[in-house]
Amino acid sequence: MSLAQRVAEAADIVTVALDELLPRADGPESRLTEAMRYAALGPGKRLRTYFAIETGKMFDLDDRPVLRAACALECIQAYSLIHDDLPAMDDDDMRRGRPTVHKAYDEATAILAGDALQTVAFEILAHPDTHKDGNVRSEMVLKLAQSAGARGMCGGQMIDMLGVRDDLGAVARMQRLKTGALIAVAFELPLIMAHAGDGERHALMAFAQDLGLAYQIVDDLLDAEGESATLGKKAGKDAAMGKANYVTLLGADAARQRLSLLAQQTKAHLDPFGPRAEFLRASVDFVLERRN
Amino acid sequence: MSLAQRVAEAADIVTVALDELLPRADGPESRLTEAMRYAALGPGKRLRTYFAIETGKMFDLDDRPVLRAACALECIQAYSLIHDDLPAMDDDDMRRGRPTVHKAYDEATAILAGDALQTVAFEILAHPDTHKDGNVRSEMVLKLAQSAGARGMCGGQMIDMLGVRDDLGAVARMQRLKTGALIAVAFELPLIMAHAGDGERHALMAFAQDLGLAYQIVDDLLDAEGESATLGKKAGKDAAMGKANYVTLLGADAARQRLSLLAQQTKAHLDPFGPRAEFLRASVDFVLERRN
Repeated sequence: MSLAQRVAEAADIVTVALDELLPRADGPESRLTEAMRYAALGPGKRLRTYFAIETGKMFDLDDRPVLRAACALECIQAYSLIHDDLPAMDDDDMRRGRPTVHKAYDEATAILAGDALQTVAFEILAHPDTHKDGNVRSEMVLKLAQSAGARGMCGGQMIDMLGVRDDLGAVARMQRLKTGALIAVAFELPLIMAHAGDGERHALMAFAQDLGLAYQIVDDLLDAEGESATLGKKAGKDAAMGKANYVTLLGADAARQRLSLLAQQTKAHLDPFGPRAEFLRASVDFVLERRN
Repeated sequence: MSLAQRVAEAADIVTVALDELLPRADGPESRLTEAMRYAALGPGKRLRTYFAIETGKMFDLDDRPVLRAACALECIQAYSLIHDDLPAMDDDDMRRGRPTVHKAYDEATAILAGDALQTVAFEILAHPDTHKDGNVRSEMVLKLAQSAGARGMCGGQMIDMLGVRDDLGAVARMQRLKTGALIAVAFELPLIMAHAGDGERHALMAFAQDLGLAYQIVDDLLDAEGESATLGKKAGKDAAMGKANYVTLLGADAARQRLSLLAQQTKAHLDPFGPRAEFLRASVDFVLERRN
């Protein structure tokens, strides 16, 4: 099975699991649960799920708890995309080739669907089905909250909204918070369940940090050079809005060079894991070669 | 100390605790943390805090864990008010006599501040400082999530946005979800920490349900008859928007009669607790006599 197939399989599995875990549409509030399902069950790369599942395999964890953790990650991801797309934020009409939630429904429903998807993420992690040990569940809730909140994803989106103009340090901070934190926690949740030691934790967290950065540089290259049709969203947004990113600041060639060095460094973090990390190692190339 | 003083003291204590727990404004994302603090540390009745603290006293719980649980409740409450006030939702400019968050800042910041305040709530509950037993922390996270999500507060707000026109059953369901669930969980979190038995849990949950309903009927009476200046928000909104509530459906006199019967029934749920429930019993009158 190729890596692309492996990623696609993880995406399918998590979508089936999410379908089971998300509230069903009934009662007078069914418009809300429909919108939550529209956002969370639609097409998506589900890379965080892939990272969580592969990390779980590396530590011989049971499938089911890891899959529930992946569902929680996807709920946070889905909520953040709904809110980022709102008119008051990035004002996007299309996402993954479909109308965004506030276009398919309306703004109020989109705000509430995002809110309730965030809530579901913590509900899933805290549920006894996720892990028998309450301390493990609580630590997972804590780490996900820290990654998603003001010192993580929300903080990064705030920096993005304020607009970074000409400072590579600020672009790097924005990336670490806005997308890096939620990528890192995809590795961290299985590490918590595995009671992994400090050495393994640090190595995998360093890998996650670099992988997140690589992911962002690819994103910036795609925004500069990709086609809207392939991306499933509007291309060239950052430049049009005068926002700085790795490509506007470094130029495309230098960004690609940096990416190439970064890829080697990223993989090197996996050395301590040996062949167990085969599929995580390969995922670096997968991230680099993505076209949307 | 009068009950009003006791409530005010609880509000002061929780505000100090929240000030410690909320992220400080620094870094390029400080606009976000400022807006979170503006919303969560501003004036408020903090009734959920009062309920949690009094329940904690009834079960001889330590102050600190209960106060942290109350902080989590206030974060959820603050987030929901920020989002409810947005132009796409209730479109309110004033809240508790001050500009709403999207007026004091802007819509994007308000959306993000609400999002991040929700996250903080779960971060607080999941932290080991809240309770030494991870199972207790996880159960608290789970219950708060269930109360706040699509089958709780967010679902109720969805029903409210869709507008209930002429059906007392639908008004009742909206109240149970939109405000009742978060009032009930203010009692439930201390019950979880106290490892309370089923009998006590059921009695206090029945009390919470009826108290929440009484709270809503008073709200509807104030909306119909109150003054905007006293309320700190616009009065007469439901009638102006053609929304049904207890007063528009029953009339003010019948609503007041129902409230009086409900008050007796609510207090009766506390009988099993005897004199230990003195201050919770008195809080029923406090809820009935509130003017804002």
